[in-house]
Amino acid sequence: MIEQRRGDGSLRHLITLEGLRRDEVEALLQHSQRYVCLAGQRPVRGTALRGIQIATLFTEPSTRTRVSFELAGRRLGADVINLELQLSSRVKGESMLDTIYTLQALHFDVFVIRDAEPGVLAHVAQHVGPHVSVLSAGEAHLAHPTQGLLDALTVRQHKGRVEALRIAIVGDLLHSRVARSAYHVFRLLEAREIRLIAPPGLMPGPDEFAGCARFTTLEEGLEGVDVVMMLRIQKERFSAAALPDGAEYFARYGLTAQRLARAHADAIVMHPQPMNRGVEIASEVADGPQSVIRSQVSNGVAVRMAVLETVAAGRGA
Amino acid sequence: MIEQRRGDGSLRHLITLEGLRRDEVEALLQHSQRYVCLAGQRPVRGTALRGIQIATLFTEPSTRTRVSFELAGRRLGADVINLELQLSSRVKGESMLDTIYTLQALHFDVFVIRDAEPGVLAHVAQHVGPHVSVLSAGEAHLAHPTQGLLDALTVRQHKGRVEALRIAIVGDLLHSRVARSAYHVFRLLEAREIRLIAPPGLMPGPDEFAGCARFTTLEEGLEGVDVVMMLRIQKERFSAAALPDGAEYFARYGLTAQRLARAHADAIVMHPQPMNRGVEIASEVADGPQSVIRSQVSNGVAVRMAVLETVAAGRGA
Amino acid sequence: MIEQRRGDGSLRHLITLEGLRRDEVEALLQHSQRYVCLAGQRPVRGTALRGIQIATLFTEPSTRTRVSFELAGRRLGADVINLELQLSSRVKGESMLDTIYTLQALHFDVFVIRDAEPGVLAHVAQHVGPHVSVLSAGEAHLAHPTQGLLDALTVRQHKGRVEALRIAIVGDLLHSRVARSAYHVFRLLEAREIRLIAPPGLMPGPDEFAGCARFTTLEEGLEGVDVVMMLRIQKERFSAAALPDGAEYFARYGLTAQRLARAHADAIVMHPQPMNRGVEIASEVADGPQSVIRSQVSNGVAVRMAVLETVAAGRGA
Repeated sequence: MIEQRRGDGSLRHLITLEGLRRDEVEALLQHSQRYVCLAGQRPVRGTALRGIQIATLFTEPSTRTRVSFELAGRRLGADVINLELQLSSRVKGESMLDTIYTLQALHFDVFVIRDAEPGVLAHVAQHVGPHVSVLSAGEAHLAHPTQGLLDALTVRQHKGRVEALRIAIVGDLLHSRVARSAYHVFRLLEAREIRLIAPPGLMPGPDEFAGCARFTTLEEGLEGVDVVMMLRIQKERFSAAALPDGAEYFARYGLTAQRLARAHADAIVMHPQPMNRGVEIASEVADGPQSVIRSQVSNGVAVRMAVLETVAAGRGA
Repeated sequence: MIEQRRGDGSLRHLITLEGLRRDEVEALLQHSQRYVCLAGQRPVRGTALRGIQIATLFTEPSTRTRVSFELAGRRLGADVINLELQLSSRVKGESMLDTIYTLQALHFDVFVIRDAEPGVLAHVAQHVGPHVSVLSAGEAHLAHPTQGLLDALTVRQHKGRVEALRIAIVGDLLHSRVARSAYHVFRLLEAREIRLIAPPGLMPGPDEFAGCARFTTLEEGLEGVDVVMMLRIQKERFSAAALPDGAEYFARYGLTAQRLARAHADAIVMHPQPMNRGVEIASEVADGPQSVIRSQVSNGVAVRMAVLETVAAGRGA
Repeated sequence: MIEQRRGDGSLRHLITLEGLRRDEVEALLQHSQRYVCLAGQRPVRGTALRGIQIATLFTEPSTRTRVSFELAGRRLGADVINLELQLSSRVKGESMLDTIYTLQALHFDVFVIRDAEPGVLAHVAQHVGPHVSVLSAGEAHLAHPTQGLLDALTVRQHKGRVEALRIAIVGDLLHSRVARSAYHVFRLLEAREIRLIAPPGLMPGPDEFAGCARFTTLEEGLEGVDVVMMLRIQKERFSAAALPDGAEYFARYGLTAQRLARAHADAIVMHPQPMNRGVEIASEVADGPQSVIRSQVSNGVAVRMAVLETVAAGRGA
């Protein structure tokens, strides 16, 4: 596993939440909370990143996450440039490194990278100069660490201490980086229970998600939970779920008000977006009183501000 | 019709010029005039929009209008982010709203939207939070309000009071949002006469453009006018104009120096751009002494600065 | 040839290095050196371009060069906007001018243009208003003046005075704007010798590159040189090189450690990037101790800062 800290112990990269200590995650969450603001409020701004150059490199499109990082950087005074360079080692390992060295020679301080291929981020992090930080904006099915942090922040805002909570993660767990980062952060914060609910064909193997109870129906899995974390399902997964289409998927695995009633009466409902309404979630639930989906989005910018400021602060100079 | 004002009467959205009062339009034009600057002069800048976040969402490409809004926002200190999100309700009504709610949760204050589908802008405006403004950058064939304002500003700069003027709008009126917004603003400013000149197949029905005289030849329609507003024609309209191609269109409906001679000797010629030279307008006219086409472009930024500042000022906070 | 200076002799456009005086190039290089900074250092920033609007118009994709100009402008406080407008006179001569006039009416001060067609840049420069500067970011096979300047700056940093040096330019000289701008700058700085090394099918005709010795093998051409400037080769050129593919090209014309050994022991190796490793250059050379390829990239931003500041300073107002 890639070392994400500098020699002095400060956080330099954020590629995965695995291996972070609890106090590090707590510090990031507290830092993030300072940047949270309500709808209609003017967002907190600062100058902590003045003179810092951030490059976003997304080999998969994701306007939401890209804009969230861009706003986070800009609100703290950084220059953010969106690059359309191909970064993948699939093209050519050395070409990717040439791109990295070029960006470094252009004096970018932070690379925010989304890549569909496992390992590209760690590969980049191993080769950049000591003053450069690499932040994941989503890596294959493996990790989406800022999403994990924003999910934890959202849960704490609405439900208080994580230790007391039963959390269900529901849907296409097999392919979900959101689920893996959520698992890491909630385990680190010592959630009382983490449950996985998925169709058999979309349930990860036993070598992953240690310690989680596994369910194949929402009816069983949601019983008494405090947090329902829905995942997005891609159309091409329906066959793996042994279901022909979205309507069938919804009938079997969609979060309806009726199924949600199995959860704790004040359970919250989360979704990383974009939602497939009528497939993995019913509109009445997505827009209902238990949904905290919109505060997840706001929290995303706050978390990315905190992460950017943290890695830049440790950089010295 | 959508209510564009806040409870206190201040302008919040600008989706159409229909329903605005004359004093509101006059105030916007006077405000715009402060931001007009000559070629080679350094543009007026300000800080009125510092901390304001503007998102541009264009489902039809339009570099000119997008850049005009972007420059307007930046000159007043706003953060402007160009989004490539699909917004159309054609995809899915609720998906569109999810996008809107996401942008709102990212604390965007102003959405600048261009959309080919009638009604999307009003739909968005009905659902955004009270602190968010929606500005049209062109909606279907219906409205292009900042274009209407910049056209009015240009006419006033060159011809003085609109009340005294005979104005001809020429070309593909049927499909033109530019024509509709021009009609609204010139009627509000009580132009002496507004004439429509179009091939029969491109002339709007009698339920629209109330009070306008209608002509099917430039020779008749341009007689004695003070302002000639040309419209852009798309190639696919030639058949509706009962003409096979651009050369034929030009022969029948193109603005030549000879036809322009029917107008008042100091009449001005306008065009929203991009021009089809040799189709709707002769180059010698487009580049001639009566053309004010380039000052329309400069006025566009000034008008958008004034509109952005007006809707942001009323926002409070 | 286009006049690149204003009436007072100050530099207004930079479309080619041809016709510049030695003292002008020396001044640009000295100016650039002030903006050079080491890896990991915070780049020099300034406010010299505050209020200046720069438009980049690239009809060929080139993220590296575009970002280099964008960073250069931003570091000095300019507003930089990347436009996707079609500028080519291939579409329509007058349409191109309409675009130019529109950008001018939007108060852009500097146009940074890359175009595949010879002559477009000069055509634009002839038509813009007196307050507007046109900078080339690469024109057909003809010129890439900021690349030429950054190459000269890199050579001087590593090898001192150009007068003492033997410089070899290697590869697809026929199609290379990089080679032509390098030739102009090194001849102006009175390099002791400039050699051209290319396959016969990629060697320019005798009417160009006056005074250069010509070689068809690296073995002969690299003998005793101080600087080896490699060029990128496009796949579609292999047939002109009378070679079937990249492996064959490498076998005959690739820069290997063995071939480099013919050069002076402390010769430097340059490449404009992106590199085709294993085609025109071996990885062990590209990443070896004689390679200065990464400092070329850093120098690129410094040179573009100096050029932007120089043309803006002469603008008055």
